Amino acid sequence: MTRAIVLLSGGLDSATTLLIAREQGFEVFALSFDYGQRHRVELERARQLAARYGATGHRIVRLDLPAPETSALTEPSLAVPKLSLGKEAIPVTYVPARNTLFLAHAVALGEALGAGDIFIGANALDYSGYPDCRREFLDAFEKTANLGTRAGVQATLRFRVHAPLLEMTKGEIVVRARNLGLDFSLTSSCYDPSAEGRPCGACDSCLLRAKGFREAGIADPIR
Amino acid sequence: MTRAIVLLSGGLDSATTLLIAREQGFEVFALSFDYGQRHRVELERARQLAARYGATGHRIVRLDLPAPETSALTEPSLAVPKLSLGKEAIPVTYVPARNTLFLAHAVALGEALGAGDIFIGANALDYSGYPDCRREFLDAFEKTANLGTRAGVQATLRFRVHAPLLEMTKGEIVVRARNLGLDFSLTSSCYDPSAEGRPCGACDSCLLRAKGFREAGIADPIR
Repeated sequence: MTRAIVLLSGGLDSATTLLIAREQGFEVFALSFDYGQRHRVELERARQLAARYGATGHRIVRLDLPAPETSALTEPSLAVPKLSLGKEAIPVTYVPARNTLFLAHAVALGEALGAGDIFIGANALDYSGYPDCRREFLDAFEKTANLGTRAGVQATLRFRVHAPLLEMTKGEIVVRARNLGLDFSLTSSCYDPSAEGRPCGACDSCLLRAKGFREAGIADPIR
Repeated sequence: MTRAIVLLSGGLDSATTLLIAREQGFEVFALSFDYGQRHRVELERARQLAARYGATGHRIVRLDLPAPETSALTEPSLAVPKLSLGKEAIPVTYVPARNTLFLAHAVALGEALGAGDIFIGANALDYSGYPDCRREFLDAFEKTANLGTRAGVQATLRFRVHAPLLEMTKGEIVVRARNLGLDFSLTSSCYDPSAEGRPCGACDSCLLRAKGFREAGIADPIR
């Protein structure tokens, strides 16, 4: 079995991506990040998802962000925007170079584990407008990974960035996840959950999730 | 003054790069990494260099490497090769995706600080053969940074990866450093120093440094 690294935040998209990687026949090693996000409850979900869906390993990397004060996801004094999906081209929840950092760690881990296939739940259709969720970025990163690693240069691995959800609507993602048997109650999407982990229902991520379930005609068990 | 991020390890090359960035008129913010390297003495040198040569800020990021056990720079039980420069295409001191990780952090910091210019002391002539020190890699990374950040996409910054030493011999670097007034005694190049920080004299990095001073006809004050 070929081993793959799956970036697993604990949200709906990355959980679906994990199941797609498994369906495609990969042995899955999950990688999550503790970067001081206010929605750290997602890490507990990531642990549960990795265990439930057969990841052969799961690593949570402590990521020391250079400027956490610039994003509402990491700076408590910045409010997470509510009911404002699409109002800003790139909202204040943007974390500088987040997917570049995440993918760099995935490549480093993949090189060490002999895993060239890297799965990311990026979506460029129903999303907040983050630049690092677009095909152009992911393709450029893939090329960089193959040029900047021993395994890539010596061709013992070929790094590939898989983003199977990239062109799907949220409704299509929810349907796909259901067909793969995802237990939605294990996932957490909210940027600004309560201390008990209950979703706010109004941040971009909650609104996108609600749109997905509505389009799919499925009830979200966590609402 | 335009602000630049300078990756500062505390070695000869990055110290010279810092002085070049200053000479080119940049305000310099230095960025170093504590990644569990056995030659952590270099971080103390980085602190001294940043203070001495007018960096307006210096950040040391704690980097949680995914697989420190694969490199002799981070795994104490792996011996650092001695007197073997050039014997391996890419030696065991290679750290998976190190410059991808370093540059990803530099871009994240640069975006937050409004600094698109990133300086790295990479050298592809007198070097250990690391793939992430080559022009192709640095160019691909630069493109990735501009595609994967808000500042790049909205064109409020243009990320540029400057590698002014890339095509220089070690001798040329030493001469350049001397002409810029670098105090060589503040730099540390050795991969495997003693507890007191004395260089081993035989690792790749010591051999390359010695070659540089020999070619330049200058005595190295730390030998």
